[in-house]
Amino acid sequence: MENYALTIKTKEKEGVLGEITDIISSFGINISYAHVYVEQVGLGNVNLELDDVEDIDKLKKELLSLDSVIDLNCYGSLNDIFGKRVIIFGGGAQVSAVANGAIIEADRHNIRGERISVDTIPLVGEENIAEAVDALSRLHRVGVLVLAGSLMGGKIAEAVRKTKEDKDLIVISLNMPGTVVEEADLVVTDPTQAGVMAVMAIASTAVFDVKRLKAKGKNKF
Amino acid sequence: MENYALTIKTKEKEGVLGEITDIISSFGINISYAHVYVEQVGLGNVNLELDDVEDIDKLKKELLSLDSVIDLNCYGSLNDIFGKRVIIFGGGAQVSAVANGAIIEADRHNIRGERISVDTIPLVGEENIAEAVDALSRLHRVGVLVLAGSLMGGKIAEAVRKTKEDKDLIVISLNMPGTVVEEADLVVTDPTQAGVMAVMAIASTAVFDVKRLKAKGKNKF
Repeated sequence: MENYALTIKTKEKEGVLGEITDIISSFGINISYAHVYVEQVGLGNVNLELDDVEDIDKLKKELLSLDSVIDLNCYGSLNDIFGKRVIIFGGGAQVSAVANGAIIEADRHNIRGERISVDTIPLVGEENIAEAVDALSRLHRVGVLVLAGSLMGGKIAEAVRKTKEDKDLIVISLNMPGTVVEEADLVVTDPTQAGVMAVMAIASTAVFDVKRLKAKGKNKF
Repeated sequence: MENYALTIKTKEKEGVLGEITDIISSFGINISYAHVYVEQVGLGNVNLELDDVEDIDKLKKELLSLDSVIDLNCYGSLNDIFGKRVIIFGGGAQVSAVANGAIIEADRHNIRGERISVDTIPLVGEENIAEAVDALSRLHRVGVLVLAGSLMGGKIAEAVRKTKEDKDLIVISLNMPGTVVEEADLVVTDPTQAGVMAVMAIASTAVFDVKRLKAKGKNKF
């Protein structure tokens, strides 16, 4: 069973996505991601990531038999292409320093065949960052969050606690004032090291289990 | 009319997504993004980004009336939280230098209320990068691509040309050997400047139209 991405060109009319998802559900296949847009007037574009597909040819044939499907292409999954995501939130000098460490480390892993992305949003303010942390559970392929600021607590700490309850997420925080460090699995003083360790924490080629450190109470550096 | 994100907790059974999308389609609402996963055995989690919603309360009520929907929450859209994405592909020293420029510039814009993300995948090899460029049209919220390498052409140039035909995408390339520079809207020698200009090209607060430069043939720096 393999993961695939399908790009389906459709007539733009009501219920097309429903027709397509009905067929996919009837195969017992899970849709992990979809991106749908109108390509031009009258023409829709449906992009789907499918998990654990048994018979892709049979699925393609059934989808092509729909009156509203014009064309269909099959690709490797986004997960195979872009891999797991290191997500970095924060502002100022720290956020680019953390990203720099993570990108250089991801480059070293990816050159050996792994796929790790480093996705950064420079953001400041308690409300803004708390909202972004909340939104993480709606993102695809998230492996680890790095909080790259100088002061974070309150609603941000609350959002981190809640997100970790809902989702299997590793959280690394820079060493800083505020309660967010209490929610993190790992607290690191040096921003470059925080970025490097974020990549190591999700890399399948690295021997590093961040959750074990926290369990032992030895997670501040 | 506003954009919203919905997180729907559902019973995990065949056809749930179809039932949900049928209702949304019947409101004439476009689903621009979906992320679906099984939260625990028997419990599904459907995350949707909806464009141009007229009556969110009526939609929520109809969705909650479905037997398979357990709970429903409404948030600001991912576009409002994470904004447009600068996507950076490439390897080695260049990729982190471009990202550094882009992140510092995005920080300056975001602190004034804008939202721009900088998403990097360190990647080398003609086939790998061409495949990643091809996959861009399946990603959500992409505004600009920066090619941050030392030599790119062949299949990468072909993938850039094809993606630009399908999608409204700005492409910035570092100045390098290979045919990819011919497909780019802007060619920049300094990696920091390439990152900064990528952000300026999609920022709503910046006065810079990269496509106008290309039309004038004055797009190499």
